[in-house]
Amino acid sequence: MQRALELATHGPATGVNPQVGCVILNATGDTLAEGWHRGAGSRHAEVDALSQLAPGAAHGSTAVVTLEPCNHVGRTGPCSLALIEAGVARVVYSVTDPGEQSCGGAKQLRAAGIEVQDGLLTEEGEALLGDWLVAARLGRPFVTLKWASSLDGRAAAADGSSRWITGPDARLDVHRRRAACDTILVGTGTVLTDDPALTARDADGGLLARQPVPVVVGRREVPTSAALLNHPQQPLFFDGLDLPGLLANLHQRGLRSVFIEGGPTVASAFVAAGLVDEYLIYLAPTLIGGPGLALGDIGVASIGEQRRLSVQSLDRLGDDIRVVARPLTT
Amino acid sequence: MQRALELATHGPATGVNPQVGCVILNATGDTLAEGWHRGAGSRHAEVDALSQLAPGAAHGSTAVVTLEPCNHVGRTGPCSLALIEAGVARVVYSVTDPGEQSCGGAKQLRAAGIEVQDGLLTEEGEALLGDWLVAARLGRPFVTLKWASSLDGRAAAADGSSRWITGPDARLDVHRRRAACDTILVGTGTVLTDDPALTARDADGGLLARQPVPVVVGRREVPTSAALLNHPQQPLFFDGLDLPGLLANLHQRGLRSVFIEGGPTVASAFVAAGLVDEYLIYLAPTLIGGPGLALGDIGVASIGEQRRLSVQSLDRLGDDIRVVARPLTT
Repeated sequence: MQRALELATHGPATGVNPQVGCVILNATGDTLAEGWHRGAGSRHAEVDALSQLAPGAAHGSTAVVTLEPCNHVGRTGPCSLALIEAGVARVVYSVTDPGEQSCGGAKQLRAAGIEVQDGLLTEEGEALLGDWLVAARLGRPFVTLKWASSLDGRAAAADGSSRWITGPDARLDVHRRRAACDTILVGTGTVLTDDPALTARDADGGLLARQPVPVVVGRREVPTSAALLNHPQQPLFFDGLDLPGLLANLHQRGLRSVFIEGGPTVASAFVAAGLVDEYLIYLAPTLIGGPGLALGDIGVASIGEQRRLSVQSLDRLGDDIRVVARPLTT
Repeated sequence: MQRALELATHGPATGVNPQVGCVILNATGDTLAEGWHRGAGSRHAEVDALSQLAPGAAHGSTAVVTLEPCNHVGRTGPCSLALIEAGVARVVYSVTDPGEQSCGGAKQLRAAGIEVQDGLLTEEGEALLGDWLVAARLGRPFVTLKWASSLDGRAAAADGSSRWITGPDARLDVHRRRAACDTILVGTGTVLTDDPALTARDADGGLLARQPVPVVVGRREVPTSAALLNHPQQPLFFDGLDLPGLLANLHQRGLRSVFIEGGPTVASAFVAAGLVDEYLIYLAPTLIGGPGLALGDIGVASIGEQRRLSVQSLDRLGDDIRVVARPLTT
């Protein structure tokens, strides 16, 4: 399995499909073939390995694979069927396939009389799959909602000015986290008010190696002079009326995580729709008052409807406070 | 000085005047007399000690006193003059008098040729004076503004309901801090909405030994059925138009600290007036959104006018977060 995990990393780390590796062993444990998945549309790892063997050579062998063999006909046939047809006697895998359409491979294999063992090096297998696994389990990208506010919940002063509420340590932390996400999402209101570049930058303003795809939500027109149009990644535009549809669209593009940067209208809409997986709140030691709220109406009429969270971490970043929280599942 | 500090504690710990003790020593260090202040209108510690001696007996002696001898004619004469007239040769004191009217005793004594030494056991002397010293230095009571809100700055849901946002640990902490303050202040809006008892209670709802005086601010009428009218302390009522005047009134009554419990109108007025010395903010891991803000308009039009704070402490209390902060002095 260690070797299969190594092989998996040869495939692309981003995209619609996961990194998967496979090793075919004979009865005495010698390696017959190795394979890995090279990305959407190309052969899955199991088929890649089997393809290197002469017909019948895999008969009675053991297939060690990092992810449960798929049971679904996409652009390639189901791997479970390929393993059955090759006469594989035993399949060992690390992580269970979370996909709604692709799962069920183990059951299919067992039905064909193949010995199936799961849960080998699961922790390593899950770590390898990373965001792909999280998004696959959710059936959509993982959504982080970030805001920076004063201790009284304001993200801007009455005139809309907001630079700077938080200090350099908090801002650097935001850029590092932007770079770890596949997309960065803002509303057209924020584009018109702040004209953000939506890039992930270092302390000196230089671009970080990885840049999230800018996603702009809303019906207001973005001016041709908008800074985000110079982003190294091609921006995506949505009217914002169908948030689940928006997330499904991003998921289909292989974008596994969304980093929402505001403004309050977009943030409130995602909270109200129950589509936020993680809150990243930077609280600056300051008071602003007035109308510039970080979050607007989220559909809570009475205190019994409040959206309880579970605090994952509480830290000081320079003068600021960082709260990471997730929806409380009861 | 240790003995003088001991003597001081014989006086009343609350009220308009501070606890002060005095010891008169002869040239060889033997105690000639001891005295302490018994409260407003009665003899100051120095005069109390001198009064025990025959005329002329204090000539050439040393007066050890916990607070700089006063230089002001109130209901009693200035202590500096009494010490000069008694022929005291040397005065040693712990804490400099912070009062605008009463200070200057040391200068007066020196002008009369008396040797003056200050700063002896200052830390112990200041600790003994406690809130009196803080209030005397401010020229008004020390003001703590407390609120409990969601992470997005709401103290109530859209319908006004707010029980409970924070958990039992945070609420117990609030009651403990109420008991440590001389007064607890709310607006008439809070009285009408929440009908608070304004008592300091333990976990079982029992009254704590010390109870703050309820202070109600605002122009709306308080119903005769209001819970606060059953408070063990007699409530005080102010129309709220003159906050410095309100604080001066409390100060004159010997009330040295104010614990503001809301609502948002009162809280915002004190913040806007720059009359808050300490912020005590309980943040519950929840989101509420909507109009129920903990703080309203505080007169900040542009981000340059934000009220920066310095965080004194950041703690978890059960599921909640407690932030203690003070205005940043630049």
